[in-house]
Amino acid sequence: MNKKIGNRTVQLKNEPRIISAFSIVGPREGEGPLKQYFDEILKDELYETESYEKAEAKILTNTIQEAIKRANLKNKDIDYLLAGDLLNQIISSSFAARQLEIPFLGLYGACSTMTESLSLGSILIDSDIGEYVVCATASHFCSAERQFRFPLEYGSQRSQTCQWTVTGSGAMVLGKGGNFPKITYVTTGVVKDYGIKDANNMGAAMAPAAVDTLYNHFKDTGRKPEYYDVIVTGDLGSIGKEITQKLLLEYGYDIRNNYMDCGDMIFNNQAQGTDAGGSGCGCSASVAAGYFYKKLMRKEIKSILLISTGALMSTTSSLQGESIPGIAHAVSIEM
Amino acid sequence: MNKKIGNRTVQLKNEPRIISAFSIVGPREGEGPLKQYFDEILKDELYETESYEKAEAKILTNTIQEAIKRANLKNKDIDYLLAGDLLNQIISSSFAARQLEIPFLGLYGACSTMTESLSLGSILIDSDIGEYVVCATASHFCSAERQFRFPLEYGSQRSQTCQWTVTGSGAMVLGKGGNFPKITYVTTGVVKDYGIKDANNMGAAMAPAAVDTLYNHFKDTGRKPEYYDVIVTGDLGSIGKEITQKLLLEYGYDIRNNYMDCGDMIFNNQAQGTDAGGSGCGCSASVAAGYFYKKLMRKEIKSILLISTGALMSTTSSLQGESIPGIAHAVSIEM
Repeated sequence: MNKKIGNRTVQLKNEPRIISAFSIVGPREGEGPLKQYFDEILKDELYETESYEKAEAKILTNTIQEAIKRANLKNKDIDYLLAGDLLNQIISSSFAARQLEIPFLGLYGACSTMTESLSLGSILIDSDIGEYVVCATASHFCSAERQFRFPLEYGSQRSQTCQWTVTGSGAMVLGKGGNFPKITYVTTGVVKDYGIKDANNMGAAMAPAAVDTLYNHFKDTGRKPEYYDVIVTGDLGSIGKEITQKLLLEYGYDIRNNYMDCGDMIFNNQAQGTDAGGSGCGCSASVAAGYFYKKLMRKEIKSILLISTGALMSTTSSLQGESIPGIAHAVSIEM
Repeated sequence: MNKKIGNRTVQLKNEPRIISAFSIVGPREGEGPLKQYFDEILKDELYETESYEKAEAKILTNTIQEAIKRANLKNKDIDYLLAGDLLNQIISSSFAARQLEIPFLGLYGACSTMTESLSLGSILIDSDIGEYVVCATASHFCSAERQFRFPLEYGSQRSQTCQWTVTGSGAMVLGKGGNFPKITYVTTGVVKDYGIKDANNMGAAMAPAAVDTLYNHFKDTGRKPEYYDVIVTGDLGSIGKEITQKLLLEYGYDIRNNYMDCGDMIFNNQAQGTDAGGSGCGCSASVAAGYFYKKLMRKEIKSILLISTGALMSTTSSLQGESIPGIAHAVSIEM
């Protein structure tokens, strides 16, 4: 009777559409390989505010607002805003919601937030709970560094396995009908923790969760990796990406031919000094809303499986000796 | 075509049922007026762990596990766990999810989390996205004090408008059919911020959000306050409660005859020294899963409107001079 297929996947029979998307990135991201795909590139990390946290909230607010405008809608047309971010108590999202006056459901999935919001958002549209839902998230290099590691002013040395939190955001408006990319399946993640405790090696901590969600997606849907033009994880970076394709091969799925990672795509690590690549909620959000949305709309790609990946620790849990739980949610988006 | 009525409310035509509930509270809550209704009362705040944060995660894990057992289900029967908490990066929920191996969607709604999770959970069941969903949250006095105010060891003096974060939790298993309380309507909140900056007066900061959600619920459903046996807010405490009923009267709705507040109910403030009353995600969660669920099952009450209320600031936003945004989500639960 229910719409689940297999253990973890929901088939969206009405195929909710992504009717618009918008992305903003910081200056460094705007110098990377995907620069031509982002909708707005900031001149500086403060974005005319007084703090990095206020800048992050402004980035998110403007991204959502522009995505709504692009869909030719007003804020009052939107039934739900599903958003979250990395900051303590998701203040970027709450302060964005304060300005937008849209019914707000706050999420926390760390860097998996983009697909968490797309999962719930597409289910809401598919089930006829309202007409339009906005799914969004953002992150900011400077606010994340000082919250999770050290204030930038310390000039701490970074480990080579470190990832670079993306200053960026992505918002998508979901609706019904029209010639837009459709969300066809949603596979929800289970928390996986293989005991990694190094907060400077998040790719390794999140890879098992990505593998588990990918494995279950293929099993539940009966699809093979080659069904998709691109399988793209959120922010595993160069190290986590390698682990993921190796582990999946052990489960019998070879994704090496069509596998990408947003964290691996957004920077030119060697030239830009971004260590193991991009991370943060804004990484998969900006790459999905910027690069992949345009590729799908232009029909240069016809299907992607997007798996945003999150590391669910806090500084407190790490200081108390806990390892890093990972999670990953997948959505298939098809033109 | 969609299931929304009015601006903010969803009518759940299949009326998902709360098929089981479980609550755990700390020692102080276990000495309060509702002590006979809680399912487990802790002997001490550490719950045989090494830190208050680990205790909070253990409380939440055990509450969810016991709620699932009471429903005669196994973890593998549960389609989704929707949970969140007050700690940075919702570590209590993520670490609970790590142990339970249930597909996990993390939420952040501060103290509004219980009705946020019930809103999304009941929509998932109503829309046939799976058979069983667990909605849960927890808070802990000691972990919240040290995160949001001061470590207890400082012995800081408390303001009289301060509320006392409840050490406690509540979990509800939602399913279909059976002689259980039904969730009939869900009204989602918009962020409201009237400029209150005093983190020691959260009741006043959250009251406008509660009023807004209540007003929209009555308007959307056409119901009058007297329809419900009890209208109960989450954790406005004695001060926020008074503001709420006064403000609503100005909007033409008199809730004075059947209005309660979980924060006002859980302690005997005068005798227990709990200032303006209880607060925290665990406040409305434990009172709803403990007291009200039993009252409904025993048919001593036939309908409640539960409105958990959240204050969406962080210590960083407060230090940066931001006021406190509030939110409130309402669910009607009827026998």
